[in-house]
Amino acid sequence: MANIVKIFDTTLRDGTQGEGISLSVEDKMKIARKLDSLGVHYIEGGWPGSNNKDIEFFTRVKELGLTHAKVTAFGSTRRKDTLPENDVNLNRILEVGVPVATIFGKSWDFHVHQAIQTTLEENLAMIYDSVLYLKQNGLEVIYDAEHFFDGYKNNPEYALQTIRKAEEAGADWIVLCDTNGGTLPHEVSEIVTAVKRAIGIPVGIHAHNDCELGVANSLAAVMAGATQVQGTINGFGERCGNANLCSIIPNLQLKLNYSCISDEQLQSLTSVARYVSEIANMHLPVNQPFVGAAAFAHKGGIHVSAILRNPSTYEHITPELVGNKQRVLVSELAGLSNLVFKAQELGIEFDNNNPQSRKLIDQIKEMEHQGYQFEGADASLELLIRDAYGKQEELFTLESFKIIVAQSAGQPVVTEAIVKLNINGETVYNAAEGNGPVNALDHALRKCLLPYFPILQDMHLSDYKVRVLDEKDTTAAKVRVLIESTDYNNTWSTVGVSANIIEASCDALIDSLRYALIGKKVTPVQSEEKERVGLVNH
Amino acid sequence: MANIVKIFDTTLRDGTQGEGISLSVEDKMKIARKLDSLGVHYIEGGWPGSNNKDIEFFTRVKELGLTHAKVTAFGSTRRKDTLPENDVNLNRILEVGVPVATIFGKSWDFHVHQAIQTTLEENLAMIYDSVLYLKQNGLEVIYDAEHFFDGYKNNPEYALQTIRKAEEAGADWIVLCDTNGGTLPHEVSEIVTAVKRAIGIPVGIHAHNDCELGVANSLAAVMAGATQVQGTINGFGERCGNANLCSIIPNLQLKLNYSCISDEQLQSLTSVARYVSEIANMHLPVNQPFVGAAAFAHKGGIHVSAILRNPSTYEHITPELVGNKQRVLVSELAGLSNLVFKAQELGIEFDNNNPQSRKLIDQIKEMEHQGYQFEGADASLELLIRDAYGKQEELFTLESFKIIVAQSAGQPVVTEAIVKLNINGETVYNAAEGNGPVNALDHALRKCLLPYFPILQDMHLSDYKVRVLDEKDTTAAKVRVLIESTDYNNTWSTVGVSANIIEASCDALIDSLRYALIGKKVTPVQSEEKERVGLVNH
Repeated sequence: MANIVKIFDTTLRDGTQGEGISLSVEDKMKIARKLDSLGVHYIEGGWPGSNNKDIEFFTRVKELGLTHAKVTAFGSTRRKDTLPENDVNLNRILEVGVPVATIFGKSWDFHVHQAIQTTLEENLAMIYDSVLYLKQNGLEVIYDAEHFFDGYKNNPEYALQTIRKAEEAGADWIVLCDTNGGTLPHEVSEIVTAVKRAIGIPVGIHAHNDCELGVANSLAAVMAGATQVQGTINGFGERCGNANLCSIIPNLQLKLNYSCISDEQLQSLTSVARYVSEIANMHLPVNQPFVGAAAFAHKGGIHVSAILRNPSTYEHITPELVGNKQRVLVSELAGLSNLVFKAQELGIEFDNNNPQSRKLIDQIKEMEHQGYQFEGADASLELLIRDAYGKQEELFTLESFKIIVAQSAGQPVVTEAIVKLNINGETVYNAAEGNGPVNALDHALRKCLLPYFPILQDMHLSDYKVRVLDEKDTTAAKVRVLIESTDYNNTWSTVGVSANIIEASCDALIDSLRYALIGKKVTPVQSEEKERVGLVNH
Repeated sequence: MANIVKIFDTTLRDGTQGEGISLSVEDKMKIARKLDSLGVHYIEGGWPGSNNKDIEFFTRVKELGLTHAKVTAFGSTRRKDTLPENDVNLNRILEVGVPVATIFGKSWDFHVHQAIQTTLEENLAMIYDSVLYLKQNGLEVIYDAEHFFDGYKNNPEYALQTIRKAEEAGADWIVLCDTNGGTLPHEVSEIVTAVKRAIGIPVGIHAHNDCELGVANSLAAVMAGATQVQGTINGFGERCGNANLCSIIPNLQLKLNYSCISDEQLQSLTSVARYVSEIANMHLPVNQPFVGAAAFAHKGGIHVSAILRNPSTYEHITPELVGNKQRVLVSELAGLSNLVFKAQELGIEFDNNNPQSRKLIDQIKEMEHQGYQFEGADASLELLIRDAYGKQEELFTLESFKIIVAQSAGQPVVTEAIVKLNINGETVYNAAEGNGPVNALDHALRKCLLPYFPILQDMHLSDYKVRVLDEKDTTAAKVRVLIESTDYNNTWSTVGVSANIIEASCDALIDSLRYALIGKKVTPVQSEEKERVGLVNH
């Protein structure tokens, strides 16, 4: 039986301190449901003493009927020179009706003087009184020792006194926080070992990523005896973020033989990471360990031929264990083996010597010469392969488009797009405005397509990149546009290249829509609807 | 005297294996110059045996006259069953004329059988012969032991034999590679310690980030005795990236008291990280440790009031040590000191308290909030200062423009720009075609301006960059356009920001032309010329 490590998720509290992250109550509900299904043990929902949105969350989260995770509310120890029963912060934790309280207090003598400006004795009393009050009210209490590592390095005896006070008052857990994220793994290891000798109750770790060591510090703490890890999905959080649970959990479970969540739950890790980043409206970097789209992507030709012989030559784990998958990127550095691999994924027997394959290879070579790059555009490559082998129905074609961008004296810029499509044999003509030419084009295309393919409602563009290919020729140089799209379950990328940025964007947009419609059928459109769509009468 | 650790940068070789990264020879030259000024000890420029672009780089890099870094070329040990003198790969390294060769060979018995399909004895001979051949030709030789950690875990005796062979043949360094990125810090520590006992020459570490432990593994190796660290700027690289030098260097130098680069060079770290990400057209995450825009940004109210009393309460290092800065609440004016300096250069006494200065500061703050960035756009900043202090004559204004981009069935895309300018009190109206909207606009503006300002003949655009500022909103997101112009004597950069890429480009183009005309006078235009120019008759 493996040693169990409890996972404490603070995406909804500390995670929201990250730059650019703001979650509505509805967002928080969605994420809480996902976290519960992932199997985390604690969900820290917010700080009820600090804002009202968090209070609403604690009320509504009870409707969800979470089956696994305990919900916990955050707060600080009582204010100096007050009684706990008069402290708004502590009472709010009781009022929101959670089974677990997580409260933080000062461990660093310097902070007691500088930040809260009281005596070392009063700080000890604040910790003791607050934990005791919450315990007397029947809650499980997690005591977060803020700045513990900095405090210990400065004054180990005082730092240990603070957590002994929490233990004496009945705390269930002591969690050591590296609040500023400046501690190194060997220090974490030494200090956790010292703490384990000093107290009898279970210990946890709360690390930040300021030295790019959030994951390493969490692992070091567990190896030194910590049995709870606090962190966030994708490492969201203030400054450089909190410790990233999406890397910590697979490292603990697949590499160090600890047990946190079930194997099936671990297989949902990639989809949870992507879901949370969608809800939080944060871009998930393709190179994010374990769960990123490039985490098991291979580009070099040498690697690829070895991978085809045996995946473990260049993969540290089987990607499916965390719900991710292997991808082979086609690029100038790689060879034909990449293309063969991609075709095989699609169930196409790729024979170098048949004319279709040779034509496809020549086509891709020619496109790469023009500046196309398929390593970041899997979906465009898949469409080329499908087209070459007749595996793709032509559901629509773009017959013409016109974009007008105009500004007159002091007025805002106006952008319009006019498009003509052939959809399933019918000519559809429509126009739309937008914030810019690509946006206007996207709107006009959707106006035409949506009535025929309502499924496109779920799809949206999630990233747009422009790369100028040869700066020497400047405004006449070629540009490569990469578009990433998502429908919440899948993410796919398409590419367009042209001297004209509008044409390149248009090509990538069309590929993106074609990819979304693979295997889909046209919904018949009623005649009154046709009028609205802009169907052209012949 | 602190222990010295040598920094080996492989951004230009392993870094380009990252998804979405592709560097032209010109890009590589720019990055090499920056790396040299940062003070890295080795710059790995590419793999001359694998592609011709890399050969061109090695030829041209000699023009740069790098003062600090040694340039090194990458390659593999000789092919099985050949002589080193007949091996194209090894000879290419000699042909490109570098002082240092970096060659990799197999350490893992499993890979010898699976990937290169030869015997364990032949693999040892391949390593020995290759190192010896390069040494006999007078090069410093760094031997990269691929998959060393996996190899050692599987068959420690054979793994050690491979590096002993390299040592016997005269290698200057043995670098232990965690090629698949699956090794944990405690394993790195044990294995480096064992290697240090087994061989006498210096040892290095080459880590990858697949477990989000690339930085931790590099530090663990150094603490166990490694004296060279290989990595990339911003951790660019295949899959989850290489070990990130932008975190490793400050950790080694500021936390562990090793010496890698000078204090002044360390202060340029943030600007190097941002420069390289601009050249590579890769988004630098705001939460990147040490160098990210949010690495020292404080959002929480409690933190902010403590920070104001004493920054070390919530900051693990002084941000200026790595050239970054603290940000509190709303973003502060980036580089007020820059602004003062720039104004003084222009002979303007910049007084914080006069109304013009305060208005200018507010204007720049507002523009930065909208997404403007003046670090890469000196000319636009200078124009703002000149405008604020009335130091710039208004020679022309853009009254209106219209761009039309259209394509009909099977025809090439047609792009036209129509512009109306007021030049020196006269209204000039003209149109031009182009390869794309920005090119057409550039042509139309020049058609109007050239007769009045023949000096513009000497000026051309030398670089054009587009960055999407906020991927969340995608085709409606804002874009920042940077334009670099040159008239052979000078080079200047301008910026435009808008949700509309055409408007942003137009703003940057206009700034670029205005800057070229600073201090210039209008050339009187003859009446027959006016006809040709498109002067509007009132």
